[in-house]
Amino acid sequence: MADNKPTLHHLENSQSHLTLWLLEELGIEYTLTKHARVNGRSPSALTAVNPVGKSPTLVTPSGRVLTERSAIALWLINAYDEGAKFRLPSPNPAAGGNGNGNVNGGTEDDAVREEQLISFGGATLCPLLTVKLVLALLVKQAPFPIRPLPALVRYAVERVFLDAELAKLFGYLDAQLDVRGKEREWFLGTREPTRTDFSLMWYVDWAVQWKWIDLEKFPRLKAFHARCTARPAWQRALEKGNGYNVAFW
Amino acid sequence: MADNKPTLHHLENSQSHLTLWLLEELGIEYTLTKHARVNGRSPSALTAVNPVGKSPTLVTPSGRVLTERSAIALWLINAYDEGAKFRLPSPNPAAGGNGNGNVNGGTEDDAVREEQLISFGGATLCPLLTVKLVLALLVKQAPFPIRPLPALVRYAVERVFLDAELAKLFGYLDAQLDVRGKEREWFLGTREPTRTDFSLMWYVDWAVQWKWIDLEKFPRLKAFHARCTARPAWQRALEKGNGYNVAFW
Repeated sequence: MADNKPTLHHLENSQSHLTLWLLEELGIEYTLTKHARVNGRSPSALTAVNPVGKSPTLVTPSGRVLTERSAIALWLINAYDEGAKFRLPSPNPAAGGNGNGNVNGGTEDDAVREEQLISFGGATLCPLLTVKLVLALLVKQAPFPIRPLPALVRYAVERVFLDAELAKLFGYLDAQLDVRGKEREWFLGTREPTRTDFSLMWYVDWAVQWKWIDLEKFPRLKAFHARCTARPAWQRALEKGNGYNVAFW
Repeated sequence: MADNKPTLHHLENSQSHLTLWLLEELGIEYTLTKHARVNGRSPSALTAVNPVGKSPTLVTPSGRVLTERSAIALWLINAYDEGAKFRLPSPNPAAGGNGNGNVNGGTEDDAVREEQLISFGGATLCPLLTVKLVLALLVKQAPFPIRPLPALVRYAVERVFLDAELAKLFGYLDAQLDVRGKEREWFLGTREPTRTDFSLMWYVDWAVQWKWIDLEKFPRLKAFHARCTARPAWQRALEKGNGYNVAFW
């Protein structure tokens, strides 16, 4: 790219908002290309940018096309977070990268904890939320006369395992903000959010917007959610985007 | 743990096999605790090890409890891969960690590519495979007289979006083994498999065992799959485990 800025291909009412939030937190210049959904789905214009048509997609100044939020966040923080505000504390402060101290003095191997939490969001929580979404859309999109049919299927799946499993997983996540009796503001015990927080907030907010979870039952997640949405960068991302209502269907 | 070995809590017929495979590749000593499914689900004995009852779970010699395959692999490779056989090539060979050269001479930022591919498996592919699984189980487990009902729901979901989407995603993965016209043996262009390969092989093998994809349509994935299953460590893992038939339902 001639202008030396990254370009975010942003889709309305999607997890792309979380990447927009990170861009605003970093306070860098970027090009925002907004896409609207077509029949609720990702438009073909996004397929032209990356073959699976996913959003967010970030095109770096050198033309590299990145998908997957956690990879985009890794690249952005590596490239632009000069003050190391959003990075993990370095094991060796003298070597730099220590702008975001672990205020709770955790002793874990933070890189492994980061991987565990990000993978928990993507590979454990997300599949069940996706099942929940597919079942909800099945009912909503079925022609009225046959709607009781998918409604019965949804009821069975949610009753037999899905809702109890989701409550367990969100309970686990809630407990991750309370490590050894100390409440943490952010999942890695840092002063400012890290990639783990930008990643996990999506799953929490997705479930909140659909009313699949009641945050009153998860007080630490409730505080985390409020902490994220109160940040000026979150608000700026809302203003710059083209809508962020993920339960729009 | 007194014996200074990690313990793998292994569940039959599950993705835990992939972690067992990595342990065998590393050639280290470990304790293998085998768990059987109860009514097809993870047993309560696993919940006693970690609160979400997931397998694989690895307990480190210092007693740290790790879940999520990609995090377990990160910890194991950091802790035991002294020859750096399964690591990413270091950007600075003089600093060590360069045992697994990039034989294709790729120039990408490999850590970001690793994150992108592992996240693609967990957060993009896995949710759709999970929907596929839930729909299949719905049909299999419905009482015979009402079975046409979930069968119709499954047909609708697969026809409307699921099967085409899965074909697109596996096509994307197949293309990742052919970067700039050169076929790669492993996803990061290394001589030996890395965390990315141990991670992605699960999604490929899961879909193959259920016959959800036809590898003849994805020749590079077919070669990748054969390359993994032909490794002596894969075979040893099969012998040491308690069964690995993930389409057992």
